[in-house]
Formats: sequence, C-alpha cells, structure tokens
Amino acid sequence: MESKKYLLQEKDIPTAWYNIVADMKNKPLPPLDPKTKKPIKAEDLYPIFAKGLVDQELNETDAWIEIPEEVRDMYKIWRPTPLVRAYGLEKALDTPAHIYFKNESVSPVGSHKLNSAIPQAYFCKQEGVTNVTTETGAGQWGTSMALAAKHFGMELAVYMVKVSYHQKPYRRSMMQTFGAEVIASPSMSTRAGRDIITKYPNYQGSLGTAISEAVELARQTPNCKYVLGSTMNHVMLHQTVIGLEAEKQMEMAGEYPDVVIACFGGGSNFSGIAFPFLRHKLTEGKDIRIVAAEPASCPKLTRGQFQYDFGDEAGYTPLFPMYTLGHNFLPANIHAGGLRYHGAGSIVSQLKKDGLMDAVDVQQLETFNAATLFARSEGIIPAPESSHAIAAAIREAEQAKLEGKQRTILFNLSGHGLIDMAAYDRYLAGDLTNYEMTDEDVAKNLAQIEQIL
Amino acid sequence: MESKKYLLQEKDIPTAWYNIVADMKNKPLPPLDPKTKKPIKAEDLYPIFAKGLVDQELNETDAWIEIPEEVRDMYKIWRPTPLVRAYGLEKALDTPAHIYFKNESVSPVGSHKLNSAIPQAYFCKQEGVTNVTTETGAGQWGTSMALAAKHFGMELAVYMVKVSYHQKPYRRSMMQTFGAEVIASPSMSTRAGRDIITKYPNYQGSLGTAISEAVELARQTPNCKYVLGSTMNHVMLHQTVIGLEAEKQMEMAGEYPDVVIACFGGGSNFSGIAFPFLRHKLTEGKDIRIVAAEPASCPKLTRGQFQYDFGDEAGYTPLFPMYTLGHNFLPANIHAGGLRYHGAGSIVSQLKKDGLMDAVDVQQLETFNAATLFARSEGIIPAPESSHAIAAAIREAEQAKLEGKQRTILFNLSGHGLIDMAAYDRYLAGDLTNYEMTDEDVAKNLAQIEQIL
Repeated sequence: MESKKYLLQEKDIPTAWYNIVADMKNKPLPPLDPKTKKPIKAEDLYPIFAKGLVDQELNETDAWIEIPEEVRDMYKIWRPTPLVRAYGLEKALDTPAHIYFKNESVSPVGSHKLNSAIPQAYFCKQEGVTNVTTETGAGQWGTSMALAAKHFGMELAVYMVKVSYHQKPYRRSMMQTFGAEVIASPSMSTRAGRDIITKYPNYQGSLGTAISEAVELARQTPNCKYVLGSTMNHVMLHQTVIGLEAEKQMEMAGEYPDVVIACFGGGSNFSGIAFPFLRHKLTEGKDIRIVAAEPASCPKLTRGQFQYDFGDEAGYTPLFPMYTLGHNFLPANIHAGGLRYHGAGSIVSQLKKDGLMDAVDVQQLETFNAATLFARSEGIIPAPESSHAIAAAIREAEQAKLEGKQRTILFNLSGHGLIDMAAYDRYLAGDLTNYEMTDEDVAKNLAQIEQIL
Repeated sequence: MESKKYLLQEKDIPTAWYNIVADMKNKPLPPLDPKTKKPIKAEDLYPIFAKGLVDQELNETDAWIEIPEEVRDMYKIWRPTPLVRAYGLEKALDTPAHIYFKNESVSPVGSHKLNSAIPQAYFCKQEGVTNVTTETGAGQWGTSMALAAKHFGMELAVYMVKVSYHQKPYRRSMMQTFGAEVIASPSMSTRAGRDIITKYPNYQGSLGTAISEAVELARQTPNCKYVLGSTMNHVMLHQTVIGLEAEKQMEMAGEYPDVVIACFGGGSNFSGIAFPFLRHKLTEGKDIRIVAAEPASCPKLTRGQFQYDFGDEAGYTPLFPMYTLGHNFLPANIHAGGLRYHGAGSIVSQLKKDGLMDAVDVQQLETFNAATLFARSEGIIPAPESSHAIAAAIREAEQAKLEGKQRTILFNLSGHGLIDMAAYDRYLAGDLTNYEMTDEDVAKNLAQIEQIL
C-alpha cells in the first residue's frame, strides 16, 4: 500500500470533450428507422432526446467539443480524479509491470457515471425540459442522474431493474435521498411493462425492458426527455474527461501505457479512458493496446455478432449497429449488474470490427479474486464491474512477469464497491459461481431475432 | 452545487501531529488505577497498548510529535483531503454565512478513522506485535483498523456491537474483505461477554461491552495489543492532521473560521479538526468558537457529569476523568452508531470544564433533515454521525441570517453515509423518531455507579 497519487488541479479539468468519430476512418454505421430501415435523422431523435445531445450524437466532424462552463463547474465537485501507481498491487503480484489506475470511484456517487449525467441534465435544462426519465441496472447511473437532475431543478423518474431494486436497496435509497422517483421495472405504469408482466408474471426485469419503459414514459409526458448512461455516442463523448486527465497524469509519471484496460458493459467507462489514448493510434499510428474486459456471462464483444439490433427489449429504439447477443438476451445473475446488457455502443463496435481494440472475457470468481487482492493491497474495495478491469490488468501483469519484461498497464477503476458488499459477502462465504454464455448459447439467442446487415 | 474545493499537494500533508496537552494550562487529570485510585504509570499500560502509543498518550511536554515516514506514505493513499466551500448549501439556506467543510469522507473506508488506525498499526508492528484486537460500533473504526492491520501484516480480531453486526452487514463484510475476523459482541469468547449474556440473554451489545471483550482478549493472547478508535489522547493526537490541513486551506480561501464544528462521540474527529484551531486560542488568545455536536440521546457533554469513570462496561480499563453518562449507560437505538458512547475523552472533558469549547445537542430528526438538505445541495450523502455537525452548522448559518451578519463556519464532514442508506430509508419512510436523555435520566444512571472526584 505504498501507492503514489498523481494529482491535477481544477484548472486541469479538460475544457473540451474528445469526439473520436471525427478521427475514425470508418465511421460507425448510422442508426436506422426500424420500419423503413432508412438512416435516422436528427429530427427523428429530437422528440426523445435533448437537441444539444442529439447534435453531439450525430457530430462526425468536430474532434473537440467544448464543455459548458456550468458543467465544468459541477465537475469540480470531485474532478480531477487521482491517477494512482498501484505499488501495493505490484508488490503483491511480484511483477516487473508498472500498474496505474485512474480512480473514478472518488465521485460523490462512487462511480464515473456522473461525468455524463451532469451534461445530459444541463442540455435538457437548457431547452426548458422539466421532467427526465431514465433506466438503471445496478443503480450507478440512476444515482448519478438523480444528483444531476436535482441540481438543475428537474424531476426524475428512474426505472430500476426489479432484481436490483430488491437486491440493492441502498442504491434505491440514494436516488430517493437525492429526490428522484424510483419504479421497479417491469412495472404496470407502461405498456411495455404491462406486456412483459402479462407474459412472464415473475420476470425480474432487464436493462432492455427498463429502457423500453423509460422511453415510453418520455414519449407520453409533456416537456419530458429521456436520458441514458451508456452505449450512445454522446455518452462516450462526455466520459472522455477520464482519459484526457489520465493522459496528463501519465505524463507527470513519466510513462506511457503499453495497454489501457477497462471493464465493458455498454462502453461508457471504457470509452472514457480509452478514446483519448486511441486518438494517438488513429491519428499518429501510436502502438498501444486497448482492452475491454467483459463478463463471460455477457460476452458481446468476444462472442456476439456484429449486426443491427434494438437498444431495448420492446423494440422502441432505433436499430443501432453493434456487437450484440440479441435484444432478447436474458442476463445471468452475476453481481456486476452494470455489465448485464446485450449490446455494445456503435463506436466501440466499429473500432472492434476494425481491429483497433481487443476484448477479453472474465469469469465471476476471477473478478472477485482480483477484487479482494486489490482491496487488501490498495485499500479500496472495487465495484464488481470494475473488478473485471482489475482481473484483466492482473493477467497482463502476470504475463509480464512470465516474460520477465517491464510493461506499463493503465486501467480504469470505474467505481467502488461499498454499495455492493452483499456480493462480497457471498464471495467470502463461497456462494458465488461462474456463469458462461457459450458460442452455442449466443447462436441460439440470435437465431430468434431478425438479422439485419 | 457550485462548490469550490481547496486542494493541497501531498507535500502539504503535515509532518508532525499537534499535541494540545503541551499547550493546556490545566492538564487533563491522570488516569487512575481502579483498585488503588493512584495515577496510572506508563508501565501499567504497556501490557495492553504498544509502547510508542503509551508514550504519546502520556506526553505533556512536546507540542509537536513527528509523523513517521511510513505513516505519512500511507496517508498519501487519500490525503490531503479537500476543503470545500459549500456554496450549494449556502444558497439553499439563503444565508450570508460562508460555510466550509473539510471532507474526510474521501478516505477509502469513507471516514476519518483511518488517520489513527494507520499509526496505531504502525507502532504495534514496530515492536513485533503479531495480533491486534479492537471493538467497533457502527463499523467505521473496525474497517479502518482492518485495512491498517492488513497493510502491516498483522491479524486483527474485531468485537462488533451485536446490533450493528446485524443491522450493518456491509461494514462487517468490508472488514472481512480486508481480511479481519469479526465477532458479534457480547460473545461467548470472553468472560466479560459470557457474564453479560448470562445476565441479559437478549442484550444487543454496546461499545462499553465490546471494549471489555477486546481488552480481555488482548490480555490473554501472547504478542497481542489492544487498539481503539477514540477518547484516548494518542487517538486525538493522530487526528490533528485534519485540522492542520484545514488551517492551510482556510488560508488559501483567505478566511478564518469564526466557529469550528464537529460531531461528538468520543471525540476523535472533533479533536482532529478543533485542536489545531484551539491552539491559537490557547497560545495567542485568538477569538474562535469551538462547538461539539452530540445526539440528544447521548448528551455526555451537555448533560453528563465530570468525574472519573471506566471506559468500558465491565470495568477493565483504568478510571479516566471525563464527562460521562455512566459506564452502565445503555444507548438509545439511534442511527449514528458512532456517537453512542457514554464518555468523552479526557482532554476534551478538561477543555469543556475550563470553558474553552461549547457543546450542543441535536435530535435525530433534525440531523436527517440536515443530511438530506446537504445531500441535495452538495451532492454528498453524509454519515448519520457527521450529520450532527451539519445540523449545528445550519443552526449557525440561520442565526447569521437572522442577525444579517456574515459569519465564517467550518465543520468536519467526518464520513459519508453510503453504508448507512438503511437509515435514510427509514427517514424517508417517516419511520424515524427522536430520542432524548433528560437530566433526570442522566442522574438516575449516574446514581447507580461509584462517584469518584
């Protein structure tokens, strides 16, 4: 635990987000209207999303997009976040590798999600929106959005995946403490919810269903917009503050990462840390490996298929190009609730397809082994989601040891696990198991949905 | 939520702790041997406490005690902590007061307790100790000690007050994740535990009983020392890093506090923020008000009696001079578990007796009102304990508004409440009640124990 922090000052908080699409040779394919299969236009998205966010979503030309002063001011509550040299972990692994992590767990809600919640609330408020809706799985996003909506004086309704609503009551309480309304999904308050409850009375919910409910409520409520915590381009954009800060901090440390690692659900924290480093690969051909670490039970990047698919279960969203397990995907009950989603964002999917990044899958027990080692050597109990990145970083460090080579590893600690101690309890009691989705499972799942592309 | 942070660099972490006893005109009365009623000597404490800590405990001459380099290195995991100007709270209160808080919640365990856990583990390790024991109420101290013991390679057994063991399973899990053994107290593993279980089979435990158990285990285990998280002089000493940093940060802000506020259990976070400011009152006659905010259900400073009393329930400790409710005190079931202790530390008790500081008591509902307002205006959900300081700060700010006067208020945010969301749940559901211990209750309690002094 002889960690060393690299600290920036408030003036070092980035003044612009990095829009990687501008630097991509192969742009992501456009979202399609599910009926006409024609590309979606900005006008099609305006009824659901704030205009300012739609314009960011579709921007393919500007590599840098200015961060509004009011957003930067709010970032100052906890940003810049520390970059930490993990000497304790290095010692525990007895590795020649240098391990660094960007500590996004220091935000008041305990994760990186606030980086995008704030600008999304800001742009909604800018156009006079009074109500916002969203969904949340494990609750990190919902909590962030609750705090951001309260700050800008808007009402928020959060559809929370039912299993998490009951298993993670603390997250629900946090949202309520910040003043948000929280509804267990599926609920009887929407058609999408009623339909699935009628079909499967005991259904415990999924992110896909919760998205359907939130979108439906936004459509039917005056002066209401929908916001979301991952997959879409503008969310990735906002998260790049992570990597932009980390770049400066690696410079302070006098090193450059050989490999950059993040856990992967829809791609928000991954894009946040990775895109600013990928920029140098895209624009200068810099040699750097970028690795997404996903659960073996939800292996969209390692075993999914690249095609057009819906973002939600009911099919309310446009069709997006993505690596997907099928929007009918029913996730296994792993504790990394934030990674239980069927698809990857369009930008990441394109980058993966073009071989510009790698992905690995990790079993649940390996993630908790890694988490516990990290907690004991670095003093921070990581979120089950973030522990996928730690596990992947440990693999790299062990490989470096085998090869007897120094290697510089950077990973993103997207959040802490203080709200997830029930999961650690089960781990310590030996009650956790591995879940794996095989190629065969994936094929079976995808066979049930329409293949477009 | 337009907070402003004042940030220090790692080099600004204090190099010495401030020992207020050296500057006190009236020194605290010495601890007494319960049998002989003669002052305790260092040799009497060595069997239970590490020598380095005993020497700090009894040091009345050196105002500054150097912080070992290894301790400072470990402080760097999260220190220096931010000082925050609470613009959001000021706005919500529409007050002319300037409100600042020192944010000790950013430590990896979520509270200030780590400031003393690290040096205590360090000094134990220095003399070859292999096992340490301690008690914990709400779990903040136990968690900190678990992390510190793991770092220095010692085994730790924590006696956790039974009601918290069951009500705060997340804290227990955190200690276990860091590798500590956690035992619900009272337990059958000690005579003190067995005696009280035999007398009251359904007894849910108290800090006083848990201390008895931990001390007994330390006495009977070879190469084992006892450590504790509050009341004793060396603990107060270690916590002064809080106020020493805050002093520099207030200087950066170009202000000096008119009043410094902290919640009060045994006195650790209170002393930490207050003593460095009190120093100027003691040595230069500086005009500054120091306020301890305690629960109305546990009002040792506002309604207790100054006398000699035991630190634990079974009477294993020396007799300490203190404001006390009696070591037979049975605390009401408030959610601020860290403040449910019968006595104040000797230094604070002397300062209070000499009129050098004030104390106020706060009802439970007022603390949760304050906590929720703070969460919504500053973005941080505070610990129920810390919310007593927030409530007292809000009173000061409202007074300033009434008088139409600017006033500079500094309080210590000793910890966050992410592990205490069950308490917020009950508050939001309207299930919380106030508890008050009246002067009559206190008198009744004290009448049952021996009065010395």
